[in-house]
Amino acid sequence: MHHPQAASRNGAAQAAPDILARLRARSPRIHCITNAVAQNFTANVLLAAGCIPSMTLSPEEIGAFVAGAQGLLVNLGTFDAERREATKIAVDAVVRAKLPWVLDPVFVDRAPPRAAFARELIGRGPAAVRLNHAEFSALGGGSMTRENAIGYARAKRTVVALSGETDLITDGARVAAVANGHALMAKVTAMGCAGSALVTACLAVEPDAFRAAAAALVIIGVAGELAAEKSTGPGSFAVAIIDALHDLDGPKLVARAKVD
Amino acid sequence: MHHPQAASRNGAAQAAPDILARLRARSPRIHCITNAVAQNFTANVLLAAGCIPSMTLSPEEIGAFVAGAQGLLVNLGTFDAERREATKIAVDAVVRAKLPWVLDPVFVDRAPPRAAFARELIGRGPAAVRLNHAEFSALGGGSMTRENAIGYARAKRTVVALSGETDLITDGARVAAVANGHALMAKVTAMGCAGSALVTACLAVEPDAFRAAAAALVIIGVAGELAAEKSTGPGSFAVAIIDALHDLDGPKLVARAKVD
Amino acid sequence: MHHPQAASRNGAAQAAPDILARLRARSPRIHCITNAVAQNFTANVLLAAGCIPSMTLSPEEIGAFVAGAQGLLVNLGTFDAERREATKIAVDAVVRAKLPWVLDPVFVDRAPPRAAFARELIGRGPAAVRLNHAEFSALGGGSMTRENAIGYARAKRTVVALSGETDLITDGARVAAVANGHALMAKVTAMGCAGSALVTACLAVEPDAFRAAAAALVIIGVAGELAAEKSTGPGSFAVAIIDALHDLDGPKLVARAKVD
Repeated sequence: MHHPQAASRNGAAQAAPDILARLRARSPRIHCITNAVAQNFTANVLLAAGCIPSMTLSPEEIGAFVAGAQGLLVNLGTFDAERREATKIAVDAVVRAKLPWVLDPVFVDRAPPRAAFARELIGRGPAAVRLNHAEFSALGGGSMTRENAIGYARAKRTVVALSGETDLITDGARVAAVANGHALMAKVTAMGCAGSALVTACLAVEPDAFRAAAAALVIIGVAGELAAEKSTGPGSFAVAIIDALHDLDGPKLVARAKVD
Repeated sequence: MHHPQAASRNGAAQAAPDILARLRARSPRIHCITNAVAQNFTANVLLAAGCIPSMTLSPEEIGAFVAGAQGLLVNLGTFDAERREATKIAVDAVVRAKLPWVLDPVFVDRAPPRAAFARELIGRGPAAVRLNHAEFSALGGGSMTRENAIGYARAKRTVVALSGETDLITDGARVAAVANGHALMAKVTAMGCAGSALVTACLAVEPDAFRAAAAALVIIGVAGELAAEKSTGPGSFAVAIIDALHDLDGPKLVARAKVD
Repeated sequence: MHHPQAASRNGAAQAAPDILARLRARSPRIHCITNAVAQNFTANVLLAAGCIPSMTLSPEEIGAFVAGAQGLLVNLGTFDAERREATKIAVDAVVRAKLPWVLDPVFVDRAPPRAAFARELIGRGPAAVRLNHAEFSALGGGSMTRENAIGYARAKRTVVALSGETDLITDGARVAAVANGHALMAKVTAMGCAGSALVTACLAVEPDAFRAAAAALVIIGVAGELAAEKSTGPGSFAVAIIDALHDLDGPKLVARAKVD
């Protein structure tokens, strides 16, 4: 359900149309360290939203690529030596250039070395961390309650964006619950990774990380709802969500945003 | 053509609806060591069939990933040092945990080091080997006759699933010929790799590897036939087969299975 | 607009239908060293055009793969140590076997080590170099005028295929301007990489590199125009262009080729 008053309270829903318009107008370049499964879909999601993706992992040049970008996504989906090295260089570059970056600690609940690396990265100050409940627990966030999320965001001085049936976004002070999206989003690989790339993109054009993260999740969620209306399964859905993102505009966002 | 009596003989066709139902009910996690070309499509095929894909190749953590999975696919499609190392660790883990695993020795006919590695892997006891005629010859199977396939399966104590216009599946005693599928399947990259991932998935829920492999090839073949009816070329076919797999059920399988 | 007389002048447009027919008839195998973002889409484009893609990067076997192929694409899109090593071996093999190869120096304008490597490769004699204006400048081509392109092609003894709203192809003597294509092509990741793979494929069946490159750009451009008529955004466009390529024939090319 749409709760315009609640949305008014934290401004998250209202910001989405304007943030989307800025993505289209500024075309930020978003550098993504992401897994091979997700690279193609993530690039197409960024392009459909009006951004420019770049994806190189080479230690020799990732520093230059990141320094010239407007944002960085670090997704731990395939956690190999090359990506770990690339991540260290890229995070150094992004911290030096004071650019926004996002951590998506995929599957940290499955393997301890990945969780240790994610914790180290959180200490470097990502603007936002996007993760699910199991990943949140594995990073020491505790069980996934609203209070734990707020506490974790405050302690780590970051925005936490917890994905679930309703996404919960908090910067430790404000909280937004985004109820947009569709069940088919869980049936397409890399959908979460692409959503995190969109969080990064919104951070590139909106300095308030809380608003940027909430706007990104409204944008991808509304695109998912529109796509579901034209799909007959997860294959056609994955195609339709790219079309829907490309076609998305302020009025559609306003009509469908469900932010509490 | 549909041969219900032949199907009755080895039980392969009858098992498919039940095995598909188990995939939906149990959602096995299938770890895939596969080439970068195939990763995304393979993951989406597994998701559409009701499974959970995982794909990490990092030597530090693939052991933990595989030990917690319900099956492992080893596809030699891009045969780099990282994947060779990952494969060794993963096969050790899967053998230790007594989990089913499948070898897809892609292109062993093109390069001798790949064939040597495939032979070594076959010695580790995969539940099934999925390959085409040229690959079968390159591994010492001889020309692709029914007798050679049976002999090879018996000698290696594995299930051989030979792909072709009609797929031949044998465990050295029983033989099934699956005639489902569509010509467009050969025009989509990674279709064979995804089929092998589905063989792995069926092995995760069906202890009889012969029945599991035959069921998987019926499932992907019937999905291909349904997809072809809604496609205008290989691009829309690749999308439609994901939708068809997601939508597939027992009655559709029974109506279309062509197993001899 | 269609300029049949201009097309007559350099023969580029006339050659396209025949070159496409040869792709279908001969099914050349095209080995691609390309970035992980582009591998799947590139493979599907090659398959739709009637070719066989192969993509391995393993140093141990890429030499054998390339020696048995009919053409090689070197795309610098993800410039990691593995791909650099693979490239050196592959270019040695292709030069030894006198096979055509194409360089796509993606993003050489973004990082100096990549530009240095690209220059070294151009010295090895690619049949064609496909690049955009920024990449052309970064390689010392100067600003992107017709004269600079001609001069560069002559100096480097290669065919230069400069992509832009109109593609410019020159071998230092002849010049063709291909005006086919659609704006949505820039909204799909890997579209340019796939186009370069198609240039390689055409070189595998047409010894005149100038005609081959122009034909490839007409083929992908016309497929793009046909796809746009059936698309509602970049997602459906990426699917439709594969269908259109698969369905493409001589009469459609003749009706739509815009070569000057």
